[in-house]
Amino acid sequence: MTDPVNAFVAGPRARISGRAGGALAGLSFAVKDLFDVAGIPTGGGNHDWAKANPVPERHAWAVQTLLDAGADLVGKTITDEVSLGILGENAFDGTPTNSAAPERVPGGSSSGSAAAVAAGLCDTALGTDTGGSMRVPSSFCGIYGIRPTHGRIDVTGLMPQAPSSDTAGWFARDAATFARVGAVLLGEAPGPLPTKLLIAVDAFAFADPEVAAALQPMVRKLERVVGPAREEIMAPQGLSVWARAQRSLQPVEAWQTFRPWIERHNPRMAFSVAAGLIAGSQVPASERNWAALMREEARARLRHLLPPGTVLCLPTTPFPAPLRGLPMPALQPMRDRITCLCAQGGLTGSPQISIPGATVDGAPVGLSIIGGRGTDASLIALAQAMEAIS
Amino acid sequence: MTDPVNAFVAGPRARISGRAGGALAGLSFAVKDLFDVAGIPTGGGNHDWAKANPVPERHAWAVQTLLDAGADLVGKTITDEVSLGILGENAFDGTPTNSAAPERVPGGSSSGSAAAVAAGLCDTALGTDTGGSMRVPSSFCGIYGIRPTHGRIDVTGLMPQAPSSDTAGWFARDAATFARVGAVLLGEAPGPLPTKLLIAVDAFAFADPEVAAALQPMVRKLERVVGPAREEIMAPQGLSVWARAQRSLQPVEAWQTFRPWIERHNPRMAFSVAAGLIAGSQVPASERNWAALMREEARARLRHLLPPGTVLCLPTTPFPAPLRGLPMPALQPMRDRITCLCAQGGLTGSPQISIPGATVDGAPVGLSIIGGRGTDASLIALAQAMEAIS
Repeated sequence: MTDPVNAFVAGPRARISGRAGGALAGLSFAVKDLFDVAGIPTGGGNHDWAKANPVPERHAWAVQTLLDAGADLVGKTITDEVSLGILGENAFDGTPTNSAAPERVPGGSSSGSAAAVAAGLCDTALGTDTGGSMRVPSSFCGIYGIRPTHGRIDVTGLMPQAPSSDTAGWFARDAATFARVGAVLLGEAPGPLPTKLLIAVDAFAFADPEVAAALQPMVRKLERVVGPAREEIMAPQGLSVWARAQRSLQPVEAWQTFRPWIERHNPRMAFSVAAGLIAGSQVPASERNWAALMREEARARLRHLLPPGTVLCLPTTPFPAPLRGLPMPALQPMRDRITCLCAQGGLTGSPQISIPGATVDGAPVGLSIIGGRGTDASLIALAQAMEAIS
Repeated sequence: MTDPVNAFVAGPRARISGRAGGALAGLSFAVKDLFDVAGIPTGGGNHDWAKANPVPERHAWAVQTLLDAGADLVGKTITDEVSLGILGENAFDGTPTNSAAPERVPGGSSSGSAAAVAAGLCDTALGTDTGGSMRVPSSFCGIYGIRPTHGRIDVTGLMPQAPSSDTAGWFARDAATFARVGAVLLGEAPGPLPTKLLIAVDAFAFADPEVAAALQPMVRKLERVVGPAREEIMAPQGLSVWARAQRSLQPVEAWQTFRPWIERHNPRMAFSVAAGLIAGSQVPASERNWAALMREEARARLRHLLPPGTVLCLPTTPFPAPLRGLPMPALQPMRDRITCLCAQGGLTGSPQISIPGATVDGAPVGLSIIGGRGTDASLIALAQAMEAIS
């Protein structure tokens, strides 16, 4: 298989046939290079990571589960360095091509998995989402993606970043494949469909007006499935306040995760990645303590908003994918705005899917749907129902 | 020429014959990969630097001057990344071998130049010294090295780091070669010999006792050349206070130097290098202002201590070279202690030579001699006079 979109990591392609006759027979899948595949170094998007870590002897749980269900592994995909990145530009491995908008970034950190699925190089692909790493590339590449309920998908064999926010998810180009893979990984068939729809007006107002407008037909379609929507503020304390809490909690945990490696090996990393880790090392205890309380408030808010049967929709990203190769000072404000629409995932652990179907300036943007914790299968049913009335 | 000590940068060796019949005819020299050599990318110890910078069209002033004097260029040498490092471990190019103590680091950032001279691969080599990058590898590798008076050697064609402290110097294994090269680069013959000797008792007390003891025979030899020594405190405000001032001024300037490159290219760098630059970006104005005043005090102190004819001696480094491959938490306190004995160079701009001749546990340590600004040729004469009575 060639790699026309630079989705796969360099070197011999990891290829393992799935068990014959499983539920996913005939499907091909790729895995983000944070998931262990037995006998192959886990690269983690940083060329000094594998040197310091043993070659895994077992497949990650999610890899093993897809293989057991009959899907065929076709390769490991590029990730933002140690999963710290939201745009998909990797200084070691290059930037996977966003085939829906080739002049733009694919989004990250599950960049290669999203690019491979979007380009049709495989049917599905595993990724991870700590602060938006499934949702953002889903939106930017115009494909389905899920950040499952925190703790729902076993992360054994997955390179950690910030364990209290880390999740494993998957991409697909169509809702049927998305649901088929979900049934295996969740161990639960799609459904039931939600019956109440909320619109996060703070999030829509925060997005570029063109994005909010482009998503309106998808919201109307959602209403046809779920029923008339009610407008709600998702984050009464402020999207930027939730983002601040996430931006305090996540880098602190990431620093705890990577500190032993860094201190022992002084690895090379892109300046922006080092800067993020150093920022994590410098968060004062008072800020961490406040952020932990704000996390509790955010969880309480979503519990209140999302009783069983209720879902909330919002733009996955405030804008379509930025152009490739922009300088750091241009990128940082974009990262910050993205975090304002993604922070609820890491803070609350609620499941969120991003559904493709809108474009701005010819580039995709996704509509996100959030449900209460544990309602992953309902969100997948909703994706199927929406696609059915296209 | 082979490279048994990993002193030279990878790729085709830069080789240029010197002009026939010059003062340095028959000498070979290497240059730290911060100096421009026409037609060859200046690597700067970071693999993303050359990609972002044009191939130089002219030789650096010091390179041209040595070639014009008849010396033959035999290669470009490994440097600590963007000259930010004092130990000589480079995550991209590896660590040059300290042939005097192969299990130990060579010191940096002029690591490859020092290693090449120490191993006899060339007669002399150009390096730079901003915060100790000539003096420390001289001490660790057991060779002669000079940090000239700031501004004395033209730095045209030299990759800058912290311009108010940057200097260009040279190494040699023997005082005669050291003086021969110095006469060309300084444009001045060695001499006159100093007539008064001070011993920096604060610096000797700060060094490991074994180092202070090992250097005593060299101090006695100095007294035979210059006359009986008088004990003096070099830094009444504290060696650590001078170090703090240098550690505030130098990283701030380094951040100013490299910030445009970093912001445009988000280069890969060793974590420790990124951390140093970020620290430079975070120094508050109040600290910078204080450090600038302390620099004035340090300059005033050395002007007072070092009238014409007077020199001051101190241990170049507080210990011999550390072992290779130590983890970051073990290295940082060592870097800090080294800075306490090196800060006067960057702060005051005074010339300093490091003279070999002592060992601790079989590893070299150098004796440093500091003179007033502009007395470089006197220090070189002193090195020759000391060697003559060996």
